[in-house]
Amino acid sequence: MLALAGIPLDCSFVFVDPSPGAPASVAGEQLACDYLDPVAHAALAECQVVTYEFESVPVAAAEAIAAFVPVYPPPIALRVAQDRFSEKSCFRELGIATAPFAAVDSEADLARAVHALGLPAVLKTRRLGYDGKGQFVLRQATDVPDAWRAVGGAPSILEGFVRFERELSLIAVRGQDGHTAFYPLVENHHERGILRKSLAPAPRLSPALQSAAEAYATLLLEHLSYVGVLTVELFDTAAGLVVNEIAPRVHNSGHYSIEGARTSQFENHLRAILGLPLGDTSALSPSCMLNLVGSLPSSAAVLAVSDAHLHLYGKSPRPGRKVGHITVRGRDAAELSQRVATLQALPGVRESE
Amino acid sequence: MLALAGIPLDCSFVFVDPSPGAPASVAGEQLACDYLDPVAHAALAECQVVTYEFESVPVAAAEAIAAFVPVYPPPIALRVAQDRFSEKSCFRELGIATAPFAAVDSEADLARAVHALGLPAVLKTRRLGYDGKGQFVLRQATDVPDAWRAVGGAPSILEGFVRFERELSLIAVRGQDGHTAFYPLVENHHERGILRKSLAPAPRLSPALQSAAEAYATLLLEHLSYVGVLTVELFDTAAGLVVNEIAPRVHNSGHYSIEGARTSQFENHLRAILGLPLGDTSALSPSCMLNLVGSLPSSAAVLAVSDAHLHLYGKSPRPGRKVGHITVRGRDAAELSQRVATLQALPGVRESE
Repeated sequence: MLALAGIPLDCSFVFVDPSPGAPASVAGEQLACDYLDPVAHAALAECQVVTYEFESVPVAAAEAIAAFVPVYPPPIALRVAQDRFSEKSCFRELGIATAPFAAVDSEADLARAVHALGLPAVLKTRRLGYDGKGQFVLRQATDVPDAWRAVGGAPSILEGFVRFERELSLIAVRGQDGHTAFYPLVENHHERGILRKSLAPAPRLSPALQSAAEAYATLLLEHLSYVGVLTVELFDTAAGLVVNEIAPRVHNSGHYSIEGARTSQFENHLRAILGLPLGDTSALSPSCMLNLVGSLPSSAAVLAVSDAHLHLYGKSPRPGRKVGHITVRGRDAAELSQRVATLQALPGVRESE
Repeated sequence: MLALAGIPLDCSFVFVDPSPGAPASVAGEQLACDYLDPVAHAALAECQVVTYEFESVPVAAAEAIAAFVPVYPPPIALRVAQDRFSEKSCFRELGIATAPFAAVDSEADLARAVHALGLPAVLKTRRLGYDGKGQFVLRQATDVPDAWRAVGGAPSILEGFVRFERELSLIAVRGQDGHTAFYPLVENHHERGILRKSLAPAPRLSPALQSAAEAYATLLLEHLSYVGVLTVELFDTAAGLVVNEIAPRVHNSGHYSIEGARTSQFENHLRAILGLPLGDTSALSPSCMLNLVGSLPSSAAVLAVSDAHLHLYGKSPRPGRKVGHITVRGRDAAELSQRVATLQALPGVRESE
């Protein structure tokens, strides 16, 4: 989706992705090798700028490449985001509200943390968490051994539960010149840890809520000397916004912006890393993004819904795999909600159970 | 632009274009060979469907390919559109208002036609007319020899002058199932025969004007058993709409639709030829498309204009060559017109004289 946004700006692309025939290979040359492969680094050295849209790229690779070509977002953002403890510590340092947390490096640490934070709480590995994997919910003190086994004894953090009304995300972008822009908050609906639906702008979005989210994002963007799109995932709670995590990349909850905003997150990410002015981030109309997870609906059935747009990733469906998404717009919330209901009733839009 | 619209629909592309390194080659395999080359035909035989977006493709090539794979729009549309006399005769047969015309195959024919139609009038070659090339305006009877020399003695037609207020175009689309959809009329501004600016929807667009244009387009779509996007170029005159010509393809005056309409002409063309339901053709907001002809502006300067979107074709600039376009939107006509003025003042947006 980055490449599709970049081709009209006369960008050409080289993609590094270890899986042969990656979706992006339709829009540029793919090097199907490891992120640390010298062949990949030699090819990237010929580029004007290097970016990533997958947050498990090894920090070492990003840092090595940054020695000879600009890498945006800066590798420090990747380093912070890849380790839940660094991430939460960064929030705490910047005065950003987040769940109570404690580092856990042993079963004894875990027992102490449970005592300090109370239950329920979630044990998460510090690294490589994605779509709800590597997590264990503790409900009673006797869960400690199971929890520690579940994370395989890996360095982890325990997070206190946050009672929230809904999950939101903020797609923020900062240019090379330090200018920032923010999309309207999006309301996200997950199932079994996987994003299924985003509503943009979030229903009942007040200017105060938007400002609070932007203030947090600004602190992070400045702190990290960030360039590109940064996604901030938040909980909307009775006590205000609480930041859950950040993703230093274009984000699934921003996919709606291709049709739903005046400039897509993909185009704005490219504008930022290329040193171009940022584009208008305002919403064109209420829209909803539905992820296609594990199965595909009939294209004809999807496109029969007015103002529905289909994005297929060229991946073969398998359980839990995101293989595409639909964005649908409505002139108002009622029209949108009717169209969403029609789409959600289609076989293949709901994951086959 | 067709490929960029098709990749999200999981389409893959093979392009036949005699010029090596054609712009489309970034989004699929290009066969840089003649349209009649058996190698090209063998590759196209593997496709689900074949289309064209260049109306000078030889009809013989389109017909040969149609023998083994569906070709949309139907080659008959190409045949009609490639010959101004067939085209005008088709309009006349269907009762569609058009300029008075007469076939001219000799200087004597031309003298007779001038007498019958009156002056001023335009002599145009029947074939291969494009962006105002191969045309001669006769203002007095003594222009006949010069005019006949100007068209190189090629089979031509003489067209009476139409006094018009403005030039409009209608982007129409018809699906395999016969369903049709129409974009709002666009107002086009040409300079020296080259489209420079399109306003969408056309200012002062009445429902009656839109209906009249759609009625003409419907006659043509049905007559040609058309599938895909058909562009109808019209003159808005005191006596009503007069059809100037048709283009059996996505059209420069429809490029605005990527940002300005709910479904782009490119996506709708693909939906039509793939047998998918047509998308919503309504305008999202007032928009303007500015062609970049012969020179390129600074990308940063263009993108500094709010809600301006840049489309570069990866072609090196040379005089008279379309190398890209800008689409800009406004929330209303006043905002749009201010943004257009800012863009038009940029070096490189107006062709270097």
